[in-house]
Amino acid sequence: MLNVTDIETAHVSAAVLATRLERAQAAAAAAGLDAVLVSPGPDLRYLTGYQALPLERLTLLVLPAAGEPVLIAPRLEVPAALASPVGSLGLPVRPWDETDDPYALVADLAGSATSVAVDARMWAEKALRIMAALPSAQVRSAGPALGRLRAIKDAAEIAALQRAGAAIDAVHAQVPELLRPGRTERAVGRDIADLITAAGHVTVDFVIVASGPNGASPHHEVSDRVLQPNEPIVVDIGGTMPDGYCSDSTRVYALGDVGAEYREYYETLYEAQAVGVAAGRVGAACADVDAATRRVMVDGGIGDYFIHRTGHGIGLETHEDPYIVETNRTPMEVGMAYSVEPGFYVEGRFGARIEDIVVLTEDGPMSVNHAPRELVVVDA
Amino acid sequence: MLNVTDIETAHVSAAVLATRLERAQAAAAAAGLDAVLVSPGPDLRYLTGYQALPLERLTLLVLPAAGEPVLIAPRLEVPAALASPVGSLGLPVRPWDETDDPYALVADLAGSATSVAVDARMWAEKALRIMAALPSAQVRSAGPALGRLRAIKDAAEIAALQRAGAAIDAVHAQVPELLRPGRTERAVGRDIADLITAAGHVTVDFVIVASGPNGASPHHEVSDRVLQPNEPIVVDIGGTMPDGYCSDSTRVYALGDVGAEYREYYETLYEAQAVGVAAGRVGAACADVDAATRRVMVDGGIGDYFIHRTGHGIGLETHEDPYIVETNRTPMEVGMAYSVEPGFYVEGRFGARIEDIVVLTEDGPMSVNHAPRELVVVDA
Repeated sequence: MLNVTDIETAHVSAAVLATRLERAQAAAAAAGLDAVLVSPGPDLRYLTGYQALPLERLTLLVLPAAGEPVLIAPRLEVPAALASPVGSLGLPVRPWDETDDPYALVADLAGSATSVAVDARMWAEKALRIMAALPSAQVRSAGPALGRLRAIKDAAEIAALQRAGAAIDAVHAQVPELLRPGRTERAVGRDIADLITAAGHVTVDFVIVASGPNGASPHHEVSDRVLQPNEPIVVDIGGTMPDGYCSDSTRVYALGDVGAEYREYYETLYEAQAVGVAAGRVGAACADVDAATRRVMVDGGIGDYFIHRTGHGIGLETHEDPYIVETNRTPMEVGMAYSVEPGFYVEGRFGARIEDIVVLTEDGPMSVNHAPRELVVVDA
Repeated sequence: MLNVTDIETAHVSAAVLATRLERAQAAAAAAGLDAVLVSPGPDLRYLTGYQALPLERLTLLVLPAAGEPVLIAPRLEVPAALASPVGSLGLPVRPWDETDDPYALVADLAGSATSVAVDARMWAEKALRIMAALPSAQVRSAGPALGRLRAIKDAAEIAALQRAGAAIDAVHAQVPELLRPGRTERAVGRDIADLITAAGHVTVDFVIVASGPNGASPHHEVSDRVLQPNEPIVVDIGGTMPDGYCSDSTRVYALGDVGAEYREYYETLYEAQAVGVAAGRVGAACADVDAATRRVMVDGGIGDYFIHRTGHGIGLETHEDPYIVETNRTPMEVGMAYSVEPGFYVEGRFGARIEDIVVLTEDGPMSVNHAPRELVVVDA
């Protein structure tokens, strides 16, 4: 079994990281930023390979639009930072001691900046202290600048998403064996979580087992509800691989005969999901994929039951840019990776969702998930 | 084996949660705040029992200093929110749809506020959008107000920390069997992670196995270094129990004979840790516990090797208020729970740390960890 101790800390070469840092600097300059400030989290891991735990002591990459990046770190974290790719990158580290004010270091390094961005996931208490330490700087989110960089995956990242996809496909392949009337969602969820780990993930990020009417709650997790014969079960699962890349896939299982109405809705959903996958095209807007998917649902008469956007980007986070939503006019580019996951939700009755992760390649959209998308019928 | 599907969502009664919400409102009023805004994370779980995943869509408790709290939630999360204690608490939920601007709802509910606090762990991108939506409000961190509430544990929370302590003690009791020359830190760490789960934790939060010179890095995790005969191994481990409360304990193992100098340092450390535990006293400052611990290290000649604060609070987070550090003059109160964990770190040679979680009771400080604190000698 794998676990947190299997996390890979150095799978990305220093050359790739150096290029990412340069691109981030260029993106900062293009956005009119003097500096980007990055605390532990997915942005820091993407830019430096350093996978620090987000804790209350300030660790902060100060990345000027022009000039040398510096890592501020608590003295007790310095050996761990240097043992990470930060060491091979040759990033200078500015340590601080327990009774020092690390925000004075931020002011020292970025005090002349008038426009600064903080990583989108930074803790508010840190962002607020940075704002106080840089009173003459306008502070905004680095989400747009860094999110756009991270949204375009390189070949190694696409391969990582394919491995994650294969791992979660392997779990879905075993789900039918777990389903039988009389078992609770929670018991099935436990078994699925064990399978997620056994398939190579280091963390189990979410396990949704939504049986019968629970399927009408898109983010139902598990409950003590007992599986009944002749009902559908929505299984939406994902985890993180040792290299940090995430999986996320939804399939629907039918425990016996779910009835003609449900099967009819499901046929529409199946078509909508396939149309959504096929709609990815360089130069189209992200919103176009949402529109194409939604049109099939509306034409099939179940548009009102499709109450959420079509998808989200995925990479080092389960949800990241680009979002596949009506309001997102961002043009699609080669290397974007995102979910296509329409669903229908009928309160008090049932629900369904089909979800693949899709990568936009030069040859068009490619799904990293290959488990059958048809309703998987299991004997009740 | 336990896992994420075993998380308890309703172990705290609605009456306790209602009291916490009232206390938070009183704390907000006392701090001169018109409202506290709380996104998914430990503060939201503490106040409402709702354990939402922190995602990009805005879920936000708007808690006015006076008046009725309201939960803003994406429509697709509403069923999950109502299935949590939010439902039994009778908190009104204001849903928003995928193409709505949820920050307009924040402005609608808190637009007249001139002083607002956001939870300390809120994502910066959300805090910045809240600041933009409430242009006439001063925004600060809710950390001081809510941190002080959460720092004082009630009897049920103390019992939860005791269960977490017993669980991690059970892991330490099995560590000697895992240690032998020739095994890597990583292999040992994997086994420990499995034991942490087997002992009842739902997540493995950190596993430090720092052998020989790696012990000089306080936050070393694991590496491929092979254990050698006659060296010390620092093992600092923790996880989260199904009820959300965390464990955290460090012990040092000696694989054979670690030499007279190390044993001498360790005796000083052992005394310092015991003195630190005993120093907890109602009305003393948190800094006093740090000072008492540090004095023993200094008097023993190893003060310069003790490069970090003495400890941190613990509860729904591994690190939370109160911090046991020289600069923290907060008076200690009955119900505070915190680590006492002095250490010595000698670069290139070795390190050590002894860590217990201590609860300050009416009868004085009580450790929730009972594994032997002496150097645990294992045959090499």
